[in-house]
Amino acid sequence: MKSYNVAIMGATGAVGQQMKEQLEKRNFPVKNIVFLASSRSAGQEITFKGKTYTVQEAVPESFENVDIALFSAGGSISEKFAPEAVKRGAVVIDNTSAFRMDKEVPLVVPEVNKEDIRLHKGIIANPNCSTIQMVCALQPLKEQYGLSKIVVSTYQAVSGAGVNAINELKSQSADFDNAQNAEASVLPVKSADRHYPIAFNAIPQIDQFTDNGYTYEEMKMINETKKIMHDDTLSVAATCVRLPVVTGHSESVYVELEGVPTVAEVKQSIANAPGVELMDDPSNQVYPMPLMAAGKDEVFVGRIRQDLDNPQGFHLWVVSDNLVKGAALNSVQIAEALVEEQIV
Amino acid sequence: MKSYNVAIMGATGAVGQQMKEQLEKRNFPVKNIVFLASSRSAGQEITFKGKTYTVQEAVPESFENVDIALFSAGGSISEKFAPEAVKRGAVVIDNTSAFRMDKEVPLVVPEVNKEDIRLHKGIIANPNCSTIQMVCALQPLKEQYGLSKIVVSTYQAVSGAGVNAINELKSQSADFDNAQNAEASVLPVKSADRHYPIAFNAIPQIDQFTDNGYTYEEMKMINETKKIMHDDTLSVAATCVRLPVVTGHSESVYVELEGVPTVAEVKQSIANAPGVELMDDPSNQVYPMPLMAAGKDEVFVGRIRQDLDNPQGFHLWVVSDNLVKGAALNSVQIAEALVEEQIV
Repeated sequence: MKSYNVAIMGATGAVGQQMKEQLEKRNFPVKNIVFLASSRSAGQEITFKGKTYTVQEAVPESFENVDIALFSAGGSISEKFAPEAVKRGAVVIDNTSAFRMDKEVPLVVPEVNKEDIRLHKGIIANPNCSTIQMVCALQPLKEQYGLSKIVVSTYQAVSGAGVNAINELKSQSADFDNAQNAEASVLPVKSADRHYPIAFNAIPQIDQFTDNGYTYEEMKMINETKKIMHDDTLSVAATCVRLPVVTGHSESVYVELEGVPTVAEVKQSIANAPGVELMDDPSNQVYPMPLMAAGKDEVFVGRIRQDLDNPQGFHLWVVSDNLVKGAALNSVQIAEALVEEQIV
Repeated sequence: MKSYNVAIMGATGAVGQQMKEQLEKRNFPVKNIVFLASSRSAGQEITFKGKTYTVQEAVPESFENVDIALFSAGGSISEKFAPEAVKRGAVVIDNTSAFRMDKEVPLVVPEVNKEDIRLHKGIIANPNCSTIQMVCALQPLKEQYGLSKIVVSTYQAVSGAGVNAINELKSQSADFDNAQNAEASVLPVKSADRHYPIAFNAIPQIDQFTDNGYTYEEMKMINETKKIMHDDTLSVAATCVRLPVVTGHSESVYVELEGVPTVAEVKQSIANAPGVELMDDPSNQVYPMPLMAAGKDEVFVGRIRQDLDNPQGFHLWVVSDNLVKGAALNSVQIAEALVEEQIV
C-alpha cells in the first residue's frame, strides 16, 4: 500500500495534537512525518506511533518532499507557509479561515461535499468547527427533503479559543462567590479591548465584530454553510455564544424544509447519515450534551421535533467535539479522501 | 393614601424573598403583611421594613382580610390555597404555572397587557420567567411593525430550579478536572429518573418532557406568549437549555416582522420600550450578559441585527434576572397595577 510524507504545522497546539492522534488512531498510511511550529515551540518532543520526534521551526524548506501538510497554526501562518508548501508539491489541508472563502479553494466536509477535493489547486480548506457539525446534521435533510432556511444559535466551548481560555475558565470557576468580579484577560477575544469573565456567564461574542453587527464567527457559519452546500439561495441566520464549557459545541438549529416529512422520517434520515449519531429518546432523557460528546468522533443529534405552527419547520440539537470532528478529524478525513481518490 | 393587607405565600423561597424585597424597594403601600410557607419553613423570621415577622404555616384562614396574596410556593400549593384566598376576598397573583393557561385567568406582563387585569375573577397569573423577558423585548416591535414568527433558543440559569440547583453547580464547579463524572442529583429535574452534571455542560431539558417531544418549559414559552400577546396566529418555536449560570436568563431571539424597519428603527423601538434597556454597541463590545444582569430590574437587549437573507428577519439577544423581572418584580408590578386601576 502506498504511504505518504505528512507534515503537521502547528503541531503543539490543541488541534495539532488532535491531528497527530487522529492519524495514529485511524492508521493513516504515513511514510515520514514532520512536526512543525513557530520558533517558540520548536524543540518540544512529540511521540507518534511509539517513536519520538522533535518539533522543528517551520521554514519554507520544511515542506520539501511533503505530500500532505495539515495546517492549524493561525491564519497568518497559513497565508505565509501554505503557498510555500504548495510550491514544493504538497497538498495543504488548512484548518484556519485564511483561504476558506477563496473561490479557488475547495471547502470540504467529506460527509457533505467530498467530491470538491478534486477541484483543489494545492489548498483545501477545513471549515469552522461550528459549521462542520451543523452541515453534517443537515445534509441528509437537504438531500431528502430540500432545505430552505436555517436559524442557528450556538453554545460554544472555550477550547475553541485555545488553552489560555481553558485555564481562565478553570481559575474563574474555582471562585464561585466572586464570579461577577473575576479577572479576565482572554475571552471573548484575546486581542480585544475588553475582556469578560466566562465562568457562570454566557458571552454573545465569538471572534471580532464585522461592520454589519455580526461577528466573524457568525459570518463564517453563514458563508461557509452556503459554500459547502453549494446553495447561495439557502437562508442562514446565526448567533454565536461562548459558554463556560471546556470542550464540545452545542447548537440549537431550526430549519425550514421544502418537503413535509414526519418527525420519524427526519429521525431516520439523521440515523442513516454518515458520521452522525441519533441520540434522541426524550422519555428516557436521552439527548446529547457537550460533557458526554467531548473526546468522541461523532456529531450527535437529539431533541428532534416539528414546529407546532409550521409543519415544514424542525428543531435539532446538535453536539460535537469542536477539536475532533470540528477540526482535526475532519482534516484527516480530507487527507483520507485524497488517498482514496488517488489525488496524492 | 390607601394601603393594603398583603400575604406572601412561599415567603422563604428564592422568589418569595425577592417579592418581599421588591415590595420594600418599590415602597408598595402595605398596611399589614403576613409571610406564609409550609409547616417545614414555618417559624423562620423575616425582616420587612425594619420589623421582624415570623413565617406562619399556611392554612385557609391565613387569607382572612388579605387584599393581595402573592403566591410562589409551587403549583400544587397554588391549586390548594389560591381558591381559599379568593373565597376570602383576596386577589391572588400566582407565580406558578397552575392557572396560567386557564381561560378565566388573565396572564399578565404589565408592559404588554396590563389592561387584562380588569378581567380577573380572583386570580391573576404571572408568566414563566423566560416568557416575561421575551415579550417585554418583542412587544414594541409587535406594536410598531407587526410580528409573525418567533424562533427562540434559551440560555437559562440554575436559580430557576431553586437553591439546591445553585448548590449543585457550586460543588461541581469546584472540581474542574472531574466534570464528566461529577455527582448530580438535582438537574435537569429533581424528580426525574436521570440527573446530569450542569457544571461545564449544557442540558437541553428544562422541566419534564410532554408527549410531543417538547419540554413543559418550551410549551410554556409557546403558549404563554400567544396568550399574553393575544395572537393565536403568531408562530412561536422554542428550545430551552439549562446552563452553568447562577442567575440571569439569556435568549437568542429571531423574529420575522410584518414590516421592514431598519436596524436603527428597531433599536429605537427597543430603547423606548418600558422596562427594557437597549445595550447594544458592538464596536465597544457592549451587549448584555447574565453576570451583569443579575440583581437588576431591567430586561436588557443587544446584538440587534437584520437577517442578511431576509429583510423582515431580526436577531435580538435578551437578558434579564429570572428571579426579578422574571418572577418577583413582575408580580409586584401586577399588584401595583391593581392599586393604580383601583381594582383592590
